[in-house]
Amino acid sequence: MEKQGTIKILQHESNILKNNPLGDKSVRDLYVYLPPDYDGEKQFPVVYCLTGFTGRGKMFLNDSAFTPNLAERMDKLISEGKIKPMIAVMPDCFTHYGGSQYINSAATGNYEDYLIEEIVPFVDENFSTIKDKNSRAVMGKSSGGYGALICGLRHADVFGLVCSTSGDAYFEHCYLADIPKAFRAIKANPHKLLAKFWDENAKKGKDDFSGLNIIGMSACYSPNGADFDLPFDMKTGEIRHDIWGKWLAHDPVRLVEKSVENLKSLKLLYIDAGTRDEFFLDIGAKILCRELKKFDIPHIHEEFDDGHFNISYRNNRSLELISENIKTN
Amino acid sequence: MEKQGTIKILQHESNILKNNPLGDKSVRDLYVYLPPDYDGEKQFPVVYCLTGFTGRGKMFLNDSAFTPNLAERMDKLISEGKIKPMIAVMPDCFTHYGGSQYINSAATGNYEDYLIEEIVPFVDENFSTIKDKNSRAVMGKSSGGYGALICGLRHADVFGLVCSTSGDAYFEHCYLADIPKAFRAIKANPHKLLAKFWDENAKKGKDDFSGLNIIGMSACYSPNGADFDLPFDMKTGEIRHDIWGKWLAHDPVRLVEKSVENLKSLKLLYIDAGTRDEFFLDIGAKILCRELKKFDIPHIHEEFDDGHFNISYRNNRSLELISENIKTN
Amino acid sequence: MEKQGTIKILQHESNILKNNPLGDKSVRDLYVYLPPDYDGEKQFPVVYCLTGFTGRGKMFLNDSAFTPNLAERMDKLISEGKIKPMIAVMPDCFTHYGGSQYINSAATGNYEDYLIEEIVPFVDENFSTIKDKNSRAVMGKSSGGYGALICGLRHADVFGLVCSTSGDAYFEHCYLADIPKAFRAIKANPHKLLAKFWDENAKKGKDDFSGLNIIGMSACYSPNGADFDLPFDMKTGEIRHDIWGKWLAHDPVRLVEKSVENLKSLKLLYIDAGTRDEFFLDIGAKILCRELKKFDIPHIHEEFDDGHFNISYRNNRSLELISENIKTN
Amino acid sequence: MEKQGTIKILQHESNILKNNPLGDKSVRDLYVYLPPDYDGEKQFPVVYCLTGFTGRGKMFLNDSAFTPNLAERMDKLISEGKIKPMIAVMPDCFTHYGGSQYINSAATGNYEDYLIEEIVPFVDENFSTIKDKNSRAVMGKSSGGYGALICGLRHADVFGLVCSTSGDAYFEHCYLADIPKAFRAIKANPHKLLAKFWDENAKKGKDDFSGLNIIGMSACYSPNGADFDLPFDMKTGEIRHDIWGKWLAHDPVRLVEKSVENLKSLKLLYIDAGTRDEFFLDIGAKILCRELKKFDIPHIHEEFDDGHFNISYRNNRSLELISENIKTN
Repeated sequence: MEKQGTIKILQHESNILKNNPLGDKSVRDLYVYLPPDYDGEKQFPVVYCLTGFTGRGKMFLNDSAFTPNLAERMDKLISEGKIKPMIAVMPDCFTHYGGSQYINSAATGNYEDYLIEEIVPFVDENFSTIKDKNSRAVMGKSSGGYGALICGLRHADVFGLVCSTSGDAYFEHCYLADIPKAFRAIKANPHKLLAKFWDENAKKGKDDFSGLNIIGMSACYSPNGADFDLPFDMKTGEIRHDIWGKWLAHDPVRLVEKSVENLKSLKLLYIDAGTRDEFFLDIGAKILCRELKKFDIPHIHEEFDDGHFNISYRNNRSLELISENIKTN
Repeated sequence: MEKQGTIKILQHESNILKNNPLGDKSVRDLYVYLPPDYDGEKQFPVVYCLTGFTGRGKMFLNDSAFTPNLAERMDKLISEGKIKPMIAVMPDCFTHYGGSQYINSAATGNYEDYLIEEIVPFVDENFSTIKDKNSRAVMGKSSGGYGALICGLRHADVFGLVCSTSGDAYFEHCYLADIPKAFRAIKANPHKLLAKFWDENAKKGKDDFSGLNIIGMSACYSPNGADFDLPFDMKTGEIRHDIWGKWLAHDPVRLVEKSVENLKSLKLLYIDAGTRDEFFLDIGAKILCRELKKFDIPHIHEEFDDGHFNISYRNNRSLELISENIKTN
Repeated sequence: MEKQGTIKILQHESNILKNNPLGDKSVRDLYVYLPPDYDGEKQFPVVYCLTGFTGRGKMFLNDSAFTPNLAERMDKLISEGKIKPMIAVMPDCFTHYGGSQYINSAATGNYEDYLIEEIVPFVDENFSTIKDKNSRAVMGKSSGGYGALICGLRHADVFGLVCSTSGDAYFEHCYLADIPKAFRAIKANPHKLLAKFWDENAKKGKDDFSGLNIIGMSACYSPNGADFDLPFDMKTGEIRHDIWGKWLAHDPVRLVEKSVENLKSLKLLYIDAGTRDEFFLDIGAKILCRELKKFDIPHIHEEFDDGHFNISYRNNRSLELISENIKTN
Repeated sequence: MEKQGTIKILQHESNILKNNPLGDKSVRDLYVYLPPDYDGEKQFPVVYCLTGFTGRGKMFLNDSAFTPNLAERMDKLISEGKIKPMIAVMPDCFTHYGGSQYINSAATGNYEDYLIEEIVPFVDENFSTIKDKNSRAVMGKSSGGYGALICGLRHADVFGLVCSTSGDAYFEHCYLADIPKAFRAIKANPHKLLAKFWDENAKKGKDDFSGLNIIGMSACYSPNGADFDLPFDMKTGEIRHDIWGKWLAHDPVRLVEKSVENLKSLKLLYIDAGTRDEFFLDIGAKILCRELKKFDIPHIHEEFDDGHFNISYRNNRSLELISENIKTN
């Protein structure tokens, strides 16, 4: 029988999130998976696992009928010898707007700083980790994949391995189609739509999730003081190109050229997506990899025959590649 | 700020499930919610919460962005004074076939006995409960609502309050439409389809869930030794009326007349369903209530404007009605 | 370049439809396709083409971007030598309820008599046809396939060749699933739902077509005087087994045993359906053919990889088989 | 009983379409509706009716169960006195690529010239029309609405009244979302996808229509010699901004400022769209009308509660407005 790892739940009190503009909690539970033979002595490499939009760390441990959660998955992979024992960290970067994209924003809070300056040191302090960028990986899906890419682009001194599954990229294809739907759902009142999401009794319409998505991304990409600008005119639905330009400045495809050295320094840069991805993130991945190639940045690009949802089985591939490339003692 | 209850996870070793035909675990985690002021002295009423098909107790505690899990929901309702403090028990009656309908079956195991003869006494032994049927409620959605009805039909000496939300009823409308889809998905090989569900890498087709559903129900309603009979001919898809008759014998609509006294003895019998239920369980509820009326069985029947999925907010209504009617000390 | 056939539109005044209970027209346009070398002298075999529910003959000639209409299809098949020159007749058996199933009904009119006793003689009178059952074929899709089967079952003295594509059969799978939807759409007032279909401005809901379908079939299978009985209880949605029994008496699967000699006398009995048929008529076809086999009735059974809609290309297969088997001079 | 108008089918041999690059027919049937009291003496105003993409004039006369075709609709409106008697012309501007957008293109043919320089004079020559721009209207839906707008923008000397229902406008919202789908469907081989549409046996996938749409529009908006450029990179799916710029130059929203005097000269400019339009053409209409307002161009803007399809009942509104504003003798 499989040996089981342990889940530790630590309370972390953040200085960076204190007084965040949304009044979201600054004391948060940090979920950490310790491998079966963790004994506090031996040092282990660490994988940071980032959830997608509307997610937070704890959800990696949700129970499901036929699909292992992240802890069960790691137990199994370790027990079968498919990956080395590693610690997995599941940070909570959720906000009232549904997420943070793991970047700093005047409208949501400084989640990039929070992750890099607080969570990583806190983990290294509290657990027997190998304190080396080449022993520290970050992976995630969707907005979590985006977050992982951001870590590779801007924090290659912290994370030496990066895996992005279906990460947000090439914003024209992954976000633009949501704008007219968001226009319909938001009806010039984003906070009213948000209130609908926070009221579990309220019926959600078919365009409402697009509305939430555009609101969430606006808060990250186009904050305006403590509020945000939507990338469309609230009266007509016309694209506001000034705001859309601010979004594009956050597109991984556009960020590559500014961070070539960082990306080249990574021990692993893995990018995959499903060829039926509902947000066309497979196409985003293709374009991102075309850009990586342009700058001779080593990377692995894979596609799989699936969509955007219910693809946690792809974590196996990321974890195996991380295991192959991560530095152990 | 809200006071938080406590989650206890007890390991229970079942005699009844030992050597069950599917080789499912007989030692299972039992998740129990204790209200904030539980102190081991004061005795509390207890609500048993049954999940739907493909569910198990632990899933009531899954984390979700905008919807409270059962523990958070109870914390909130108790804190707002909307319900009395109560213990909530989340049993695990999951099987390799996706569920048990909370009944005994030679093909899955004796889950009805397990719940009544083992779990209830185990809870009463381990927690400070009020040991009285009128202080013991059972509620659930979908197959969990079916399970609650079964408790009311056959175990009114154990459970004095029963709430069924979108419980399986009037099998012609809730199951028959799945048969031709199941025929297509099963392709004369139910165990191969099952294997597909247990392989997270395997692609599921659009009729596959119907196939799983019909397999799961066959195992409960028409076991044949340790195996089961499907209600259709595997070559042509024609309905096997002999087998279908065995299913109908488990339809709550048909069971009412055999259990009139039990049902009349209940302190609460609450039945609701959404008027857009994808399995037409609102119609099943109407027909069930027509039958209850025929026998002058007191009950409350409500409908709500929603479908079958993502309706955990309806738990509030059940919990409030239970709280109003349950006996406390 | 292809030679083109001619479309003739004849006005036929029906005695049988006069004073039909719905006040539908008794004078109707009959559309007839004459092959390119039709000259009034040479005699041709005839194919009667029956539309599905909500159809009428003229629709075979509707124009479509990428798909030939029936006349263009025949021109092409004849010109390529894939079929012999044949006359094609497109009768109009439409009613206020959406169709007639090509059978007699006190609620709609005697469309079976109309077709057999009026239209066939009228065609033979007005065109240079071969007046022989073995030179007369009937084909159709969906309700038109059902109509073709009825011709084979009861009028083998008139039609010697029968092709049913996705014809209504095994009513449990093709109609039962529509009953709960119809219950929701009809809301105890079938004539109000009908009025909605006849008002092009009225918004149709997602269950409304199921409602229309069940109304249309009730008018054919369970007329009650000049009105009809629905196969479910209007208050609860429960199936009315007395009425449902009347429906089953019209199921081709059940009719076979009564018409074995007729069916055996056919020169061609061709049955096909798509394996993704939305009404599971491929399964109906399997069961029907199982029944044909039981009585040693010669037939050809084929399946194709498609659904119920947009499959007029299957007409080619029927027309080719008819052409191979039909008697010419 | 309603008096019925007459359908005339004229063969028109086009000089402009002769030797068109796609080898499409240059001799085409022109369908013309003449009102009941047309006698060759009295002169009538004329409405040109333009179909959407994949349509051609004849399809206005397709038969449908519950919806009148254009001739039946005009009979009814005239008979009820809701519109004046008018001639309706149904031109055929279909091409091998599915349509022409009613504009000139080196890749498809000069359909704008064809309509203005050949069809209008041909109609005036063959029928008893009022030869005056204020007695000549143009209306259409979708690409037909686009065509009507083009007539108003560039041929206000020919057409004095313009009605666009759900006309293509604000290309960012109506076309961009199709680009990633088209990328998937086209797989770097547009002509292979086209062949699939022209083979009725070929299975069409869910993105294929998006592929056809983008091909069809490319042929109109970004021809390249007798071929065309797609607005995306065939290897990566990235938008080709040079090509996309050519598309935008055809966007009605962008064309307004170049044709202010033309648009101001119209007796009627009517724009409507459904608030659930699947291509967001209601938003396109809003933005177009915002632009019209900017230049003080009189127009009527309406919205209705429906989508993009099955909305021919909206023709009533256009026909009634045309009737109110069109000049008769």
